[in-house]
Amino acid sequence: MVLENEESKSLQSAKWGDGFESRAAFSTSPATGNANVRVFAPYTIYKGKASLSISPVLPTFVKIDSDIDGLKVDRRGSIMLTFCPAIGERKYDWEQRQKFALSPTEVGSLISMGAHDASEFYHDPSMKSSNAGQVSKSLCIKAFDGGNGYMISLTVTNNILKSNERFIIPVTTAEFAVLKTACSFALPHIMGWDRLTNQSPKGIKGSPSKMNPKQHFDLEWDR
Amino acid sequence: MVLENEESKSLQSAKWGDGFESRAAFSTSPATGNANVRVFAPYTIYKGKASLSISPVLPTFVKIDSDIDGLKVDRRGSIMLTFCPAIGERKYDWEQRQKFALSPTEVGSLISMGAHDASEFYHDPSMKSSNAGQVSKSLCIKAFDGGNGYMISLTVTNNILKSNERFIIPVTTAEFAVLKTACSFALPHIMGWDRLTNQSPKGIKGSPSKMNPKQHFDLEWDR
Amino acid sequence: MVLENEESKSLQSAKWGDGFESRAAFSTSPATGNANVRVFAPYTIYKGKASLSISPVLPTFVKIDSDIDGLKVDRRGSIMLTFCPAIGERKYDWEQRQKFALSPTEVGSLISMGAHDASEFYHDPSMKSSNAGQVSKSLCIKAFDGGNGYMISLTVTNNILKSNERFIIPVTTAEFAVLKTACSFALPHIMGWDRLTNQSPKGIKGSPSKMNPKQHFDLEWDR
Amino acid sequence: MVLENEESKSLQSAKWGDGFESRAAFSTSPATGNANVRVFAPYTIYKGKASLSISPVLPTFVKIDSDIDGLKVDRRGSIMLTFCPAIGERKYDWEQRQKFALSPTEVGSLISMGAHDASEFYHDPSMKSSNAGQVSKSLCIKAFDGGNGYMISLTVTNNILKSNERFIIPVTTAEFAVLKTACSFALPHIMGWDRLTNQSPKGIKGSPSKMNPKQHFDLEWDR
Repeated sequence: MVLENEESKSLQSAKWGDGFESRAAFSTSPATGNANVRVFAPYTIYKGKASLSISPVLPTFVKIDSDIDGLKVDRRGSIMLTFCPAIGERKYDWEQRQKFALSPTEVGSLISMGAHDASEFYHDPSMKSSNAGQVSKSLCIKAFDGGNGYMISLTVTNNILKSNERFIIPVTTAEFAVLKTACSFALPHIMGWDRLTNQSPKGIKGSPSKMNPKQHFDLEWDR
Repeated sequence: MVLENEESKSLQSAKWGDGFESRAAFSTSPATGNANVRVFAPYTIYKGKASLSISPVLPTFVKIDSDIDGLKVDRRGSIMLTFCPAIGERKYDWEQRQKFALSPTEVGSLISMGAHDASEFYHDPSMKSSNAGQVSKSLCIKAFDGGNGYMISLTVTNNILKSNERFIIPVTTAEFAVLKTACSFALPHIMGWDRLTNQSPKGIKGSPSKMNPKQHFDLEWDR
Repeated sequence: MVLENEESKSLQSAKWGDGFESRAAFSTSPATGNANVRVFAPYTIYKGKASLSISPVLPTFVKIDSDIDGLKVDRRGSIMLTFCPAIGERKYDWEQRQKFALSPTEVGSLISMGAHDASEFYHDPSMKSSNAGQVSKSLCIKAFDGGNGYMISLTVTNNILKSNERFIIPVTTAEFAVLKTACSFALPHIMGWDRLTNQSPKGIKGSPSKMNPKQHFDLEWDR
Repeated sequence: MVLENEESKSLQSAKWGDGFESRAAFSTSPATGNANVRVFAPYTIYKGKASLSISPVLPTFVKIDSDIDGLKVDRRGSIMLTFCPAIGERKYDWEQRQKFALSPTEVGSLISMGAHDASEFYHDPSMKSSNAGQVSKSLCIKAFDGGNGYMISLTVTNNILKSNERFIIPVTTAEFAVLKTACSFALPHIMGWDRLTNQSPKGIKGSPSKMNPKQHFDLEWDR
């Protein structure tokens, strides 16, 4: 029932939200890089067995080694998913958290999911190295048969420690709509496209130049 | 007929919109917290028996008690719905207003509604206390059978005063499209995500660092 | 053929776009009110019998007569449609232009149109006065039977001058997608909601306050 | 498999992304016109036979020759697609790149494509001149029969050099969702509409003016 969901979630925020977000601060701090002030506003879903916290991680930029004053993306942005296991009624253990960083393309996969689709992503920190496959993470997003919501699960396998952690979060259609809308909003930002467009007045010449129909194509044809 | 709707609404704004919004100022003032200037731009639907006014309420932030310069969400943002009963032709009584604050997840439920869906939300200010259930609010959004619009109704029950107020607003498909579009726009803002992304240049290092394919995963793997 | 459309449009812009927009400046100047710099960037569709130019008109604000420092909407924003008749091959007569200002709700109607829908809006400048009906404007947006585009037509009837002007613009699915996307982007801005959300840091208190689960509802319950 | 895709792309970025984007800087520099700092954040899809890089190109503005302080669009903005042929495993030759600039209407065509649609655009730099047809570019976007992704191909024909270059990029549903979302975000910006709406407080008068229901129509009726 909505009341149960909404209200229990409010209470959880009251009991654990603050500290949760406060601690989250340190783990998600890369999100705002060297910004003057760091802002932490994760969207957190609290469920019986685990909690899932979603935050955008902005890209970082570096100066271009050239004679022009430019910046290029250094580290890609992402949408960070943080899972915490429940360790009692409405208690979640931040120390045992596991994270999964959705790339722009993985975000594209999420926001294009229909009411009956499923997506699965694999990450391996040692990929392409001799240690490949020793440790891996698998995120699965699967629509419920009824089409009323999704199951999001993260599996972290460590073949060295022989450990296998699993987090399962049932997500309502409403919660998934928040995810889709917030991720669609964040996507251009984690791609760095907001930096291309939110700039001060530009390209202003002193007097109108005669419009040139080919000008548009010159851009296409220069090499 | 569109003319009737459009024009009568314009006229109502002329007669009551100003004062309405002016008084609204005081009730929605938390929306902009300590901002220098408060801006009031509710979207108001005037119908025969009541009016419905929609405004985003931004979250408030507090400094984090730590050695980093950060902010975290203090009070969640919401979309505030304000209902006023009609007390004559195109006259609405602000004194008898009732409000319902949609949480981000409830907004997600609203913007994901199809042309034939229904949603219902319950709020109880005394929830989880000994007074639980004494006073409660129930908001119902239900598509018309024809799929041409929605009925939005708010019921406020006070078991102590034995009072039961009800507001009913028929909403056209066009008005609901404004609601959905405006709420989708506002959602990341009431979540505080605009604060994460609308920041000044960040993460800029003096010289390009060698790109590290694992760097992306380090974020996932730090604890 | 796309080439024809695209290129002929480019050429038209070359021949008439500049002056067109330059003159448009004066008629759409209310869009940016007292802003320091006015920017004119209409989206114009040039067709055989007429041209259609679309521009957002931002709302204007007035100070609130009260002890708080606030602003409220004075004049509603709108999406201004400007029609010009063709007076020769790729020549359009700005002097004979006719305009139609879509209200936020009318914009909601436009952006919620399906591939087979139709919408019609009526405006009467003398509405509710003794001159009502003497002069009126009717805008009709109707999907083609094939579902491949829309017909947008404006009819301006003047019963005193016994005049009846009509503008008809066939719009491709691609052009309508630009209309929908641009109008969806502009809607929160013509509503003034961008002013609520694009504000500088706000609601920041010196130290974290204990989170209060009822706080959220207090907003709902204050009068 | 997603892992393969994701990771191989990361690796490619590591090997070629930096230099790629660095060189890209000079070709896409018009994107930010005379802005103080140029930001380069293309979304690049690396596939077996070629790579496709997408970046918004902002419009440029010129002062209006008039007594008002205004700006109008000088050169239209666009979404620039840059194709590079593969010259070895995960090696792409920037020197052999070919570009295609999508106009706002062509972007509208792209973002309105369904899971089974196809679009084709033709550009001829010499169009309407005696050299028309000597050199031309054709971009084709076609959904796979299965509805699981799209094929994007660019053909550049030079009838003088008797050359015919072709680039083919298979795009997954997830990658196309990023394209659609990023292009929908960028569309109002390449149209210059962000300049109309992201302006500082405007239209603020000292004291509230009496609301005039016709005021809204006066805008429609002035000439």
